[in-house]
Amino acid sequence: MSGSTFGTKFKITTWGESHGAGVGVVIDGCPAGLPLCEEDIQRYLDRRKPGQSRFSTPRKEDDTALIQSGIFEGRTTGTPISIAVYNKNQRSADYSEIASYYRPGHADYTFDQKYGFRDYRGGGRSSARETIGRVAAGAVAAKLLDTIGIHFLTYVKSIGPVTIDPAHFDASCIETHPLRMPDAVAAAEAQAYLDRCMQSQNSSGGVVECIIKGVPAGIGEPVFQKLDSALAGAIFSIGAVKGFEIGDGFAAARATGIENNDAFYSDKHGQIRKKTNHAGGILGGISDGSDIILRAAFKPTPSVSAVQQTVSKNGETISIQVKGRHDPVIVPRAVVVVEAMAALTLADLTLLNLGAQADCVSDFYITSQKK
Amino acid sequence: MSGSTFGTKFKITTWGESHGAGVGVVIDGCPAGLPLCEEDIQRYLDRRKPGQSRFSTPRKEDDTALIQSGIFEGRTTGTPISIAVYNKNQRSADYSEIASYYRPGHADYTFDQKYGFRDYRGGGRSSARETIGRVAAGAVAAKLLDTIGIHFLTYVKSIGPVTIDPAHFDASCIETHPLRMPDAVAAAEAQAYLDRCMQSQNSSGGVVECIIKGVPAGIGEPVFQKLDSALAGAIFSIGAVKGFEIGDGFAAARATGIENNDAFYSDKHGQIRKKTNHAGGILGGISDGSDIILRAAFKPTPSVSAVQQTVSKNGETISIQVKGRHDPVIVPRAVVVVEAMAALTLADLTLLNLGAQADCVSDFYITSQKK
Amino acid sequence: MSGSTFGTKFKITTWGESHGAGVGVVIDGCPAGLPLCEEDIQRYLDRRKPGQSRFSTPRKEDDTALIQSGIFEGRTTGTPISIAVYNKNQRSADYSEIASYYRPGHADYTFDQKYGFRDYRGGGRSSARETIGRVAAGAVAAKLLDTIGIHFLTYVKSIGPVTIDPAHFDASCIETHPLRMPDAVAAAEAQAYLDRCMQSQNSSGGVVECIIKGVPAGIGEPVFQKLDSALAGAIFSIGAVKGFEIGDGFAAARATGIENNDAFYSDKHGQIRKKTNHAGGILGGISDGSDIILRAAFKPTPSVSAVQQTVSKNGETISIQVKGRHDPVIVPRAVVVVEAMAALTLADLTLLNLGAQADCVSDFYITSQKK
Amino acid sequence: MSGSTFGTKFKITTWGESHGAGVGVVIDGCPAGLPLCEEDIQRYLDRRKPGQSRFSTPRKEDDTALIQSGIFEGRTTGTPISIAVYNKNQRSADYSEIASYYRPGHADYTFDQKYGFRDYRGGGRSSARETIGRVAAGAVAAKLLDTIGIHFLTYVKSIGPVTIDPAHFDASCIETHPLRMPDAVAAAEAQAYLDRCMQSQNSSGGVVECIIKGVPAGIGEPVFQKLDSALAGAIFSIGAVKGFEIGDGFAAARATGIENNDAFYSDKHGQIRKKTNHAGGILGGISDGSDIILRAAFKPTPSVSAVQQTVSKNGETISIQVKGRHDPVIVPRAVVVVEAMAALTLADLTLLNLGAQADCVSDFYITSQKK
Repeated sequence: MSGSTFGTKFKITTWGESHGAGVGVVIDGCPAGLPLCEEDIQRYLDRRKPGQSRFSTPRKEDDTALIQSGIFEGRTTGTPISIAVYNKNQRSADYSEIASYYRPGHADYTFDQKYGFRDYRGGGRSSARETIGRVAAGAVAAKLLDTIGIHFLTYVKSIGPVTIDPAHFDASCIETHPLRMPDAVAAAEAQAYLDRCMQSQNSSGGVVECIIKGVPAGIGEPVFQKLDSALAGAIFSIGAVKGFEIGDGFAAARATGIENNDAFYSDKHGQIRKKTNHAGGILGGISDGSDIILRAAFKPTPSVSAVQQTVSKNGETISIQVKGRHDPVIVPRAVVVVEAMAALTLADLTLLNLGAQADCVSDFYITSQKK
Repeated sequence: MSGSTFGTKFKITTWGESHGAGVGVVIDGCPAGLPLCEEDIQRYLDRRKPGQSRFSTPRKEDDTALIQSGIFEGRTTGTPISIAVYNKNQRSADYSEIASYYRPGHADYTFDQKYGFRDYRGGGRSSARETIGRVAAGAVAAKLLDTIGIHFLTYVKSIGPVTIDPAHFDASCIETHPLRMPDAVAAAEAQAYLDRCMQSQNSSGGVVECIIKGVPAGIGEPVFQKLDSALAGAIFSIGAVKGFEIGDGFAAARATGIENNDAFYSDKHGQIRKKTNHAGGILGGISDGSDIILRAAFKPTPSVSAVQQTVSKNGETISIQVKGRHDPVIVPRAVVVVEAMAALTLADLTLLNLGAQADCVSDFYITSQKK
Repeated sequence: MSGSTFGTKFKITTWGESHGAGVGVVIDGCPAGLPLCEEDIQRYLDRRKPGQSRFSTPRKEDDTALIQSGIFEGRTTGTPISIAVYNKNQRSADYSEIASYYRPGHADYTFDQKYGFRDYRGGGRSSARETIGRVAAGAVAAKLLDTIGIHFLTYVKSIGPVTIDPAHFDASCIETHPLRMPDAVAAAEAQAYLDRCMQSQNSSGGVVECIIKGVPAGIGEPVFQKLDSALAGAIFSIGAVKGFEIGDGFAAARATGIENNDAFYSDKHGQIRKKTNHAGGILGGISDGSDIILRAAFKPTPSVSAVQQTVSKNGETISIQVKGRHDPVIVPRAVVVVEAMAALTLADLTLLNLGAQADCVSDFYITSQKK
Repeated sequence: MSGSTFGTKFKITTWGESHGAGVGVVIDGCPAGLPLCEEDIQRYLDRRKPGQSRFSTPRKEDDTALIQSGIFEGRTTGTPISIAVYNKNQRSADYSEIASYYRPGHADYTFDQKYGFRDYRGGGRSSARETIGRVAAGAVAAKLLDTIGIHFLTYVKSIGPVTIDPAHFDASCIETHPLRMPDAVAAAEAQAYLDRCMQSQNSSGGVVECIIKGVPAGIGEPVFQKLDSALAGAIFSIGAVKGFEIGDGFAAARATGIENNDAFYSDKHGQIRKKTNHAGGILGGISDGSDIILRAAFKPTPSVSAVQQTVSKNGETISIQVKGRHDPVIVPRAVVVVEAMAALTLADLTLLNLGAQADCVSDFYITSQKK
C-alpha cells in the first residue's frame, strides 16, 4: 500500500531500506526559482549523522546527498527534486539470526504479519535510515520557509528523568553539545544518566521540543487539515514517537479556562498579540501569529544489549541478545528529524493557504499578472 | 481551501455551521451490503447530545440524523451516504456583540486573519456542532468494523486534577454516569471539582482514553500513514485537543528500553502475543494484534463567564463576559467524538490494507472470483 | 470505494440517487469572499432541466437548489458549501421489472457485478440526475473564474450525422434554440433527423464543444496534472461520453508537423500570441493564453423504446421494451454538464497554480501581508 | 506544484529531465511478494528505445534500469520500488540558441510563463525522456496484472492518413515491424508516406490502439474515478496526445441507440456476455468483462527541420530551423507508453476495487485470517 508520500502541494515521497542500494526522496511541488544546492541539504543530513558522540552509535554513516533533478543554474525549476543518498555501509553482515526471530519493540513481527515476509537486514524499511529522505526534504522546505521569515528552534527537552530548566535555557549550545540540550546543568545530569544506562546494557527515551518562529497568522485548514492536526500526524509518523503536544499539551487538561485562555491585546504598533501562549500559537487549527510550540515523546531505543525474551518465527520462546552498534538514546539525532517534519508540514500548509481569499486570487491573475 | 475531507478509501466530507441550515457529512467508500439504518447513527449522536447533566450546557440540541442517500432496502449500496442534521435551534440571537471582538481561546481572530471575515454566529464552522458529522460517520465506520470484530471502549480518564484509578475501573458505568468516568470514587471527586469551577465562573479540561479491541495485526501503512500517525492526526483534528499519546506515551520517554520493550511469547494456541503492552498495540506503525490504547488531552472550555480582557476588531483593549450556555467541561461529550475519529481511521486503514500481499489479490480475482 | 470526490484545492463531493431523498454536492475549497446566492446556481440547473422541448423527456424535474452552508451575508466564507436538490418526482413506480434484468447500454450489470446488488430505481447512482451536483458546483466554479476573466462558450456541435458549419456559427442562438446548436440550418436538419429517430423508437448521439476564453498562460501542472489530462478525466467522468479531443484532436493525427505547429508572433502590444490554434490553447499540458478548445462525443441514449434482446439476472435470454420517458438525444442537456466539469477543472488548477514561483509566495506573505 | 504523482493505491512519482543526471520513478503501493527483477523492466524500456529503425531518431539512448529499493530476494516487499535510469547521453551541446526563443508546438513558452524560467536543455522536464519513468513503472504494473490474467495488445492503428485494415490484422508482426503496425500492406504505405514527410523536412502524427484482455467485471469507481475517466486522464497525460476514445468513440456520436447498444446473452457456461462491444468493455464507468478498447491520437512531432517562424524571448519575430535528431513520427515508440499508462491505471483501480463489498472485507479478516 502507499504510505510513503507526504503532503498535498509540497509533496514528498521517500524510498529505500537500511541495507539496500540507498535511500532517497522525491520532492514535488517546490516553487520555482528557489536557490538550492547540495550543501543546503548536507548541512541538515550532518545533524542526524551518528558517531557524533559516545552517546550515539559509533557506526560510520558518511551520508552524502546527491541532487539528481529539479535544479537548473542553481535554482529550483518547479519540477521534482530527486535526492539520493547511496549506502556506503553495506558490509554483508550475517542477518540470518535476526531473520529467524522477532526483536521486542521492533517492527519485525508486524511487517511479517502485514506483508508475509520482510527485508530483515538492519530493519529494512523500518530502519531509522528511512528518515534520511525526510531530513533532506526538510532542508528544502526550511529554505523555502526562510524566504517568508519562518525559522525553527529545536532541541532536546528531556532525556529519561532529566529535563531542562527554562531558567538555564541557552540556545547557543544546542548544536555544540552532543546531547543538543540547551541547559549545561541538565545536560551534565543527562550524560551521567546515560552512562548508567549504558553500563546496564540499557537505553533511554526523551522529549524533543520545537519552537517555530515567524509563522504568519492564517496557516492551517479548518477541520481535518488543522495546523496542529497536520503537525501531529507528521511528527507521529517518525518511528519511536509515542506522544505529541501543542502548547501546554497535557498540562492544559489539568488547567482551568481562566488559567489557560490567552488574553489578546494590541501592541504599540497596533498589532494584535496574546499576553500568554498556552495555546502554542494555534487557535481553531489556524496559526495565530505567535510562536508554534510542539513536543514529541520518544520511546527508549528498543535495541538493548541486555538479554531479552522473545519468540522465533515458528513460535518457540527464546532468549536473545541484540548485537551490533546502537544508540543508547535517539533523541539528540531525532532533533533534526522533528524539525524536518515540522518544516515539511509548514511548507505544505503555507502553500495551501494561498488562495484562501477570492480577492487575492483575482489580484494574482488580474492585477499583478504574475504567473 | 479544502480541509473538510478525511480518509482515502473510507472517505468523509463534513459541512455546516453552528447557526446555518444544518450540519452533515457525506461518506464515500463504505463497502456495499452493510445493514444500516438511522437508528444506528442516532445512537451515536445521542451520546454527544448536550443537556444530559448539570455539567453540560442546558442548551437543547435535539439532533435527528436523516440518511439521504446510499442505502437501499436497508443496506449500503457502495455509493455515497449523505447524512444531514438540520438545526432546530436557530433563535435569532443577537451576535453583533461577539462579531465585534475576539474571544480568548476561540478561533474568531484566526478565521478573520485567514478568510478576511467570518460567520460569527455561535462560532460558525469552528463550533463544536461541526463534530456532529464526524460522529454520524463514525457510527457507520464502527458498524463496519464490528463485522470484523473491532470494538471500542472509550471513557473519561481525568477531569482537571482528578484521574481514575485503574484499580477501581468499572466499564459498566461509562454510559450511565454523567461524566462517563468508569471509577465511582474519582467521578465523585470530579463532580465536586466541577462544582467549584462553576461557582467561580470557570471551566475544566480533561483526558479521554480509547481502547480499541480486536484489531488484527497488519493494519497501518509504513512511513507516513502509520496507524499511530493516522490516529494522531485524526484525534488532533478535534477542536480543543492539545495532546495525544499511544500506549505509555510521554511516560515512555522517561522509561528505559528494558522497562519499555514488550516481550513476545506464544500462547497455548501457538498464537504470538506480548507479555505487556507499553507499545499500545502498534509497532513500526502497524497494529500488532493487541489492544490499541490512545489518550487525548482536551483544554478547558474557553467560554468562561468570568470577566476576561481582549481586543475589539479594531484593536481597542476591552473587557468582556462571554454570555450564553456553555459546558463547564467538554470531555464527557467528547468521548464519542474521539471514538468516532478512531473508528473512521481504523475503517480507512483496514480497507487500505486489503491487497498488501500479491497472492491475496490474485486469490480475490482468480480463486474466489468474488467482485 | 470512494470515487465521488473531484479536485484537489477546489474539491467537490457529490451524493444522491435518482429516486432517493435527493441529490447534492459539497464544495470544499472555494475561496472566501465570493458573492454567491441560490439564483447563481439555479441559473445553471435550469439549463440541464428536461422538458424544454419535444426532444427531451417530458418528465417534469423542477429542481430547486438549496444552499445549506458556507455562505454568510451573501458571500462564501471559505468553508464547505453544501447544496441539495430534493427529489419531488418520486412517484412509487413499479421497478420490479428492471430489477429483474440488465438493460443494454446501462450500468445495471456492472453495478451488480461490483457491489453484489444495486438501487435499480431509475438507474440509482448511475442516473443522469447524478449530474445535478456537478452542475450546481460548476456554477460556483464559473462564478469564481469570472472574477479572473475566464468565460465559457459551450454548445452542441453535432447530432448524429448533422454537424454545424463554422461559416454559419451564431453564438446568440445557443441558449434560445432547443438543441443548443448555433447554426440555424444545421439545427433544422438535426430536428428532422431526431424526428425520424423518434418515429423509429430510436435515439441519437452527438458532440458537445466547449471554448474557454480568457485563461491566463501557466495553468496546468506538468506530467500527471496537465490541463488537458485533467480536462479529459473530468469530461470522461460524465456518463455516455465515449470520446474527447483538445484542439484539432484526431485530425492532428492525420496532419503533418508543418501544418499542425502554431507559429508564435508578437502582437502590437508586444504580447506573444499564436497565429493559429491547432493546439487548442495547451502546450506541454499548460495553458498558452489562447482559447482552450475541447470536444466530447456522447453515445446515443441507451433507453430506446424499440424491442431489445437481453438477459435476466438469472441468465435467461429475454426480449424487453424499456418503458418510461426518455431523451431521444442527451447532448442539448449535456452542454451545461460539460461546461460545469470544465469550470470545476479550471477552478482547481487555477488555485493549484498559485505558488508556482517562490517569489510570488514571499510577495504574498511578506510584501502584501495579505492572508 | 505537484503533478508528478499518479495513482491512489498503486502510486507512482516520476522525476528527471532530459539532460539532468537521469530520470526515474518511485512506485509505492505494489503488493508484496510479486517476483520482480531488472529484466522485467528492461524489456519494457527497450520497446521505447529510439534508433530501432530509420523512422526514429538515430540518437543512441541505451537506457538501463536500476532497481534501488523495494525488492528482497527477488520479490517485492510492499515498500517503495525506486527505479533510476542515468543519462549516458549528456554531451554538452550548445543550447544557448533554443534558450533564446520559443519552439512552435513545444512547451518552452508555457514553462517560462508558469515558472519564470526553464531548464531548456533538450526540453528539460517536458522531454519525451520523462516517459521512461512511466514505462518502467508500467512494466511492474503489467507484471502484477498478469497474475490476475490481464494482458495488453497495443499497436499503431494509423500513421498520418494511413490506417490498418482489420481484415489484414496480424498481431504477430507488432513487435517485429519497425512501425508496430499489424497490417503489412498499411505498414508499407505508411513507410512510403513517412519517407515523403522526411524528404520535405516534415513529420507525421498517428493513432495508437490498446486492447486490454481479461479484465474482470467490476473494475472502476462510479462518478469521478470511472475506469474510462481514469484511462482518459492517464493517456492524456502523455505529451502530444490530442484525442482519446473508448470503444466506438466519436463514431458512437454518429450512431443510433439501436446500433450502439450491445445486447447481453448467456454463453454455454451460463456466463453473461455481450454480442457486440461498441462500449469498449465499460458500462457506467465499470468494466463489464469484455475487452477494454481505447485509442489515443498523437499530434505530429513538432520538431521539424523545415524553416519555421516564431518569436525570441524578448518578442522579436524570427525564423528558426530546429536542429538535432528527431523522430519523424513518435507513435511507434509511444505504443509502450500508452500500454504503460493503461497498465498503471488498471493496477490502481484493481487494487481500489478490493473491499467494494462488506462481506469480502469480513471474509478477508475473519475467515481467511490472511493479512
